[in-house]
Amino acid sequence: MIVVLQGDDRPPGMTPVERIADVRYVTERDLGKQLPDADILFMYDFWSEALARAWPEAGGPGWVHIASAGVDRLLFPALVEGDTIVTNSRGVFDGPIAEYVLGLVLAFAKDLPATLRLQAEGAWRHRETERVAGTRALVVGTGPIGRAIGRTLAAAGLRVGGIGRTARSGDPDLGEVLSDDRLHEALGEADWVVLAAPLTDRTRGMIDRVALDRMRPGARLINVGRGPLVVEDDLVAALRAGRIAGAALDVFVDEPLPAPSPLWGLPNVIVSPHMSGDVVGWRDELVRLFADNLDRRLSGRPLRNVVDKRLGYVRSGDPASSS
Amino acid sequence: MIVVLQGDDRPPGMTPVERIADVRYVTERDLGKQLPDADILFMYDFWSEALARAWPEAGGPGWVHIASAGVDRLLFPALVEGDTIVTNSRGVFDGPIAEYVLGLVLAFAKDLPATLRLQAEGAWRHRETERVAGTRALVVGTGPIGRAIGRTLAAAGLRVGGIGRTARSGDPDLGEVLSDDRLHEALGEADWVVLAAPLTDRTRGMIDRVALDRMRPGARLINVGRGPLVVEDDLVAALRAGRIAGAALDVFVDEPLPAPSPLWGLPNVIVSPHMSGDVVGWRDELVRLFADNLDRRLSGRPLRNVVDKRLGYVRSGDPASSS
Repeated sequence: MIVVLQGDDRPPGMTPVERIADVRYVTERDLGKQLPDADILFMYDFWSEALARAWPEAGGPGWVHIASAGVDRLLFPALVEGDTIVTNSRGVFDGPIAEYVLGLVLAFAKDLPATLRLQAEGAWRHRETERVAGTRALVVGTGPIGRAIGRTLAAAGLRVGGIGRTARSGDPDLGEVLSDDRLHEALGEADWVVLAAPLTDRTRGMIDRVALDRMRPGARLINVGRGPLVVEDDLVAALRAGRIAGAALDVFVDEPLPAPSPLWGLPNVIVSPHMSGDVVGWRDELVRLFADNLDRRLSGRPLRNVVDKRLGYVRSGDPASSS
Repeated sequence: MIVVLQGDDRPPGMTPVERIADVRYVTERDLGKQLPDADILFMYDFWSEALARAWPEAGGPGWVHIASAGVDRLLFPALVEGDTIVTNSRGVFDGPIAEYVLGLVLAFAKDLPATLRLQAEGAWRHRETERVAGTRALVVGTGPIGRAIGRTLAAAGLRVGGIGRTARSGDPDLGEVLSDDRLHEALGEADWVVLAAPLTDRTRGMIDRVALDRMRPGARLINVGRGPLVVEDDLVAALRAGRIAGAALDVFVDEPLPAPSPLWGLPNVIVSPHMSGDVVGWRDELVRLFADNLDRRLSGRPLRNVVDKRLGYVRSGDPASSS
C-alpha cells in the first residue's frame, strides 16, 4: 500500500502506479492515520514537515521517496536512525536550474533589471554593460545540480571552479574543485558565487559575514540551493554597505519570504519564489521518477537516488543514482 | 590630415594616432568646413547623418572609417559611387551582442520580467518556466554578429539555423542556412527569431505582417540588427493579437524610441536603448580598431573591414576582414 502525501493537488500521471498498487492520497491532516499501514510513502508535498509528527512509534514504511532534490526538511532522527530507505528526485532539476543560473548571470551583466525599470518609465538611457566570457564563477556544491551549472556556465565562456567536500583537479564539469575548508580563499577570486549545495550541518550558514567580506566588491551571489546556506542578516548588511555588487536569491530561510524582509526591496537584489528548477512538465517528471523507482522496488532491482541519511544527500559514488 | 567627427565626447585613447597624424576633432556643425582638407574621416559619431550634407562636390577623403558595424545611415549615393574606401567596426560587437541575445532568450524562458514585477509588489508567486535546451532559434544574418549569436545559442543547447543571402548546409556556426527567399518557411519552425542582418534594400521590412503570421504563437522575436528590418506597426498588431508570444527590441525605426510608441508599454515586450553590443571598454576597442587600420593604410597594407558599398556590408570572403 502506497500513501501519497499531497498538498492542494494530486500528482499527475499516477494511473500506471494505481494499476499495480493500492494508492491512498492524503493531506498532512490524515497522514498519521494512514501511515502505519503504508509500505511506501511518496512525499509529493515535499515541503511538508508533517512526517516527523506522524511517524509511527513502531517505525514507518520501508521506503520513503520525496519529490525534491533536497531532503533537509524531510530528515528527522527517527527516520535517520531507522531502517527506512529514503530516495530523492535528484536529476530532475539539474538542467533547468543551470539555465536559470545562467539567465541570472546574464541579467546582472547586461543590466536587465534597470532596462525593465527604465522601460516602465518610458526612459531611453544608454548604458554600458559587462561581458560574461572570461569572468570567474565559483560553484559551491558538486552534486548533479552544481555540475550542470558548471557545464552551462563554462559553455557560455565563464571560467568555472568548484567547492566540494573533497578537493580534486581537472573535474570534467567544475575544473579545479577546492575542499570546503578553503571556501574563504576561493571566494576572493570569483565574480559569481553560485550556491548549489545541500543543506547540512556542514553547509548551514557557510555564507556569513566573514565569507561575504572575502568576496570581491564587484561580485554577485546566486543562491539556488537552500536559504539557510546564507546568513540573511549578514547578506543584507553586505549589500547595504556595497561590499558585494548584488544577489539573486531563489531560496530563503523562511519561504515564502516574509513581507518585512529587506531583501524584497534592496537594489541589485533579485528575489524569486523558489522556482529555479520548475519547468513546464516538472511534476510529470517527478512522478515518472517515482514510478520508475517503484518498478525497481517491485522487481527487486536497486533503487535510484538512495539518500545517505547521515550525510543528507545522495553520494556521487552511488552506481544506481541518476545524474 | 584626419578629421574625427565626434558627438558630445572625443574618442578615448587617441594619443597614438595624434602622434603620427594631424587630427582635427569636429562636430556636425563644422564638418563641412574641415572635410575638403581631410585625407581620412573617422566617423566616431557613427549615428550622424551629417556626412551626406557636408560631402564636398569635388569628392571627399579617400578613406572613411565608421565606429559601428552597420553602415546603413552612413551610405549615400555620392559616397557609394565615388572612389572613397569605407571601412566599418565589424568584430567589436560580436561577442557582446551574442551574450545579450542569450540573456534575452533566458529572460523570456525563465519569466524574469514577471519575477521583477512581482518582487516590486512584494508578491511571492510560484510559476513554471521553460527550458531553452532543445528549442529552435533562427538567426537572420550570417555576418560575424549572427555567427557569434549562433555559436552562443548552440552552446546553451538550442538548435540553431540561419537565414542568409546564400543557402548552405553544415555551416559551422549556424548549421543549416536557408536563403532569404525561404524566410517565411523557416519562420514557422522557430521558437526564437533573432535579427542580426544589415539594413539594406533587400532586408528592409523583411519582418512584416506576412512574416509575423508565419511565426509560431509561442515564438519570440529578438532584434539586435536595425529597427527598419521590422515593420513596427505590423509587430505591434501581432503582439496585441497574441499571434506571437513576445519581442525584445534593442533597435527601432526611430531612435530614441518616441514616447508615443506603443512598444514601450506592451506586455511581453522588452525595450532596450540600442546597447546590446556596448560593453565596458567598447569605445577603446573602437579606437584601437581605427588605429590599427590607420597603421595599415600608412604602411600600405590592406585595410580591415572594407565595406562593399553596393551590398551595404563587409563581404564574408574579404580575407583582411576581422571576424
